[in-house]
Parts: sequence; C-alpha cells; structure tokens
Amino acid sequence: MPRPETDIVATRIRIMDAAEHIIQEKGAISFTMTDLATAVGMSPSNLYRFFESKDALAEAMAGEWFAELEIIMDGLVSAEMPVEEKLYQFFAKRLMVKRARFEDDPGLFESYMELGDEHFEVIKGYVDLADHYMASILAEAMEKGYFKGLDLDTVVSLVNTMMQPFCNPKLMMQMMHLATDERLRIVISTILSGLQAHDEQVPVKPELHIAG
Amino acid sequence: MPRPETDIVATRIRIMDAAEHIIQEKGAISFTMTDLATAVGMSPSNLYRFFESKDALAEAMAGEWFAELEIIMDGLVSAEMPVEEKLYQFFAKRLMVKRARFEDDPGLFESYMELGDEHFEVIKGYVDLADHYMASILAEAMEKGYFKGLDLDTVVSLVNTMMQPFCNPKLMMQMMHLATDERLRIVISTILSGLQAHDEQVPVKPELHIAG
Repeated sequence: MPRPETDIVATRIRIMDAAEHIIQEKGAISFTMTDLATAVGMSPSNLYRFFESKDALAEAMAGEWFAELEIIMDGLVSAEMPVEEKLYQFFAKRLMVKRARFEDDPGLFESYMELGDEHFEVIKGYVDLADHYMASILAEAMEKGYFKGLDLDTVVSLVNTMMQPFCNPKLMMQMMHLATDERLRIVISTILSGLQAHDEQVPVKPELHIAG
Repeated sequence: MPRPETDIVATRIRIMDAAEHIIQEKGAISFTMTDLATAVGMSPSNLYRFFESKDALAEAMAGEWFAELEIIMDGLVSAEMPVEEKLYQFFAKRLMVKRARFEDDPGLFESYMELGDEHFEVIKGYVDLADHYMASILAEAMEKGYFKGLDLDTVVSLVNTMMQPFCNPKLMMQMMHLATDERLRIVISTILSGLQAHDEQVPVKPELHIAG
C-alpha cells in the first residue's frame, strides 16, 4: 500500500518544517511537542504517531541536516583523486555547504546548534560517522607515507584538533570570515607536510629550516 | 596620602570579589550594578565612585583575569631559549593556567566567558595584546627560516586558526581532555615543520613523504 506510506512521509516533512519554523522564531531550547502540535493543527496524541518524542523529532531533523554532508563524504572516500586533494575537498565541500546555510539564516543555524546540544546523543553518531570517513582518507594518506610514527586514531584526533575552525560549526559561527578556501588549503598542506611523531624534546630540527 | 589610595584599592578588590561571587551564582548576563551594591552593602551612588559603570567593572575584572597570562607572555618573549621551545611554552604555560582555573570551578570559568562576551570591546584589547606577543615570537621563528613565503600577519592568523583548542577558552571548555601537553607539542611541531606557502594546486609533493 504505497499511498499511506507516502502520506506518512509527507506529514513527517510538514511537521519537521513546522518545527524548524518554531526553532527559528523561539530557539531550540524551550519549544515543546505541545507547541508543535498546535503549530501543525494536530492533537498531541496524533503528533506522537509521527514522532514518538522530541528526541525522535530531533533525530529526524539531524538526519536532514547531515544527509547532504554524508553524500559528500561518501562520494569522496571512493573518488579517484590524489589523497592530498581528497583530504582538502573533504573539508572544503562541507565548509561550503555549512557556510551557505549559515549565511542563508544565521539565527536558524544557531538554533540547529542548540538543538544538537540538547540532543547530543543523536549528534554523536553523525560526528563518529564523519570521523570514520575521515579516518579512511587519512589511512590512505598513511599508506602513501604521511604521518610517520603516529597511529591512525592519534592522526584522526590531531587533524580534528587543528581543523576546528573549518569543521566545528559552533566555532565556524564565530570565525566564518577566517575559514576561507585559501587558508584551508594552507592548513591541509601544513598538516600533510608537518604532522608526524617527533622523538626529540625540541619540536623540530631548526637546521632543516634555515633559509637560503 | 597613601592611606586613602590603599583603601580605594582594597574596596575595589572587595567589590570585584563580590561581583565574582554574583556571577558564580547567577551567571554574568543578568547581574546589575544595583545587585552588586546590595551585595557589598553600599548605596548604588557610592558603588559608582569605585566603578563608574558595569563596563568599568568588567574591565577591571578582565585585567585580573589576564594579569597572570600577560606576565607569562612578557617573560617568554625576552627569554633566552630556542624559538621552537618558546613557541611551545607560549601556549603550554597559558594552557596550564587556564586548565587550572577551569578545573577549579568550571561554572565560574563559564561565567567569565559570558562576561567577556558581554563586554567584548574590553576583551579585544587583551586578545590583540596576546597576538602582538605571539607575533614577536613568530617573527623570531621567521628569522630562523620558518614559514617561508608567508607574511607575518598571515602566519599569526594561521597559527591562531590551528591552535584554537589550545588557546580559545570557550572551545577549551568543550575539548579540555584533548588539550594535553603531548598533543600540543605535536601540533606546534607540525606548524613549525609544515607551515609555508605552496605554489602548486596539490598541497604537498607526496614523493617527499613516501616512507623507507
């Protein structure tokens, strides 16, 4: 019976649109399923047939938020291109999507961040998935000789650390003007050429760097 | 007349302590000079003799917050040590101070961040001062041949970008467990060995990195 299934999907989308409108107006913290039922003209018990809790609604909204980013990540992992370019695009393409969303409606972007904070257990899965995709690109780079002396988990964690202004949406809100493509390219290249284990106490051998 | 001067300083300190107690209890956003006057048992007009506005109070509190960090930065800039170690300690020593403050009272730490957000024009001067100290260390590194092809302003800005989890106190609150000394040393060494201008489109020459 395809008809009812389609109706359910359409109604769920209509409810999510209404929820987005509410968080856009009021922020994500204070809205309740009762507010949402009123906004879509349903009884609360009817609303709960479509989303059994605010958690379930947040999960569906997070799914929409991450869907486009997942397609980008999934496409890149199997793409035929040099791993250096792949790592760059892994951040550049997602940065472009997030920047467009932010510029389109900074207030709504912030409300989505609040919604994510409120339902972090939901977001955690998507963050782990992004780490998983990134790990497979970084593993490819390690096969080519990058990141000598470091294990993959350490590399994933250090790359995440240095890439925060290009991938942490909350930090991006504060620093969006700094997250340019040109700067991203330099940071990726810094990580690729500089990130490796060092035995000595002084970080690097200065004599390698004397100009001329 | 040293006596009255000393009394004024002592009273200002007592008022700042009371203000800290208030933001610790209620957060920084909502408290007023009237609340503060009540807390120290003064009339509002008497309080205004010591701090002419909430801005002036925030400025004095920011001064206390940054005083220890300024001593560290000032001492390091003129210290006799290899510039690589100097750059590492520039972040490591301040990280240690901020981590200790955070662990001592995470709620108060967060309230200070709120106070800073509310009075950003006050904080901005201290942020610029830290950039100024960092620039003089990075200029010293450039004299030794680091960061080829980049100008000092670009280097300052890129180093700030990659160091966010070790120097942005708001981000540190979320990622304190990641900001270890060992990771800091690797990130500094990555920046020193990897950060430079690149002409080619592909970030680095992979053949330089093939192991063996």
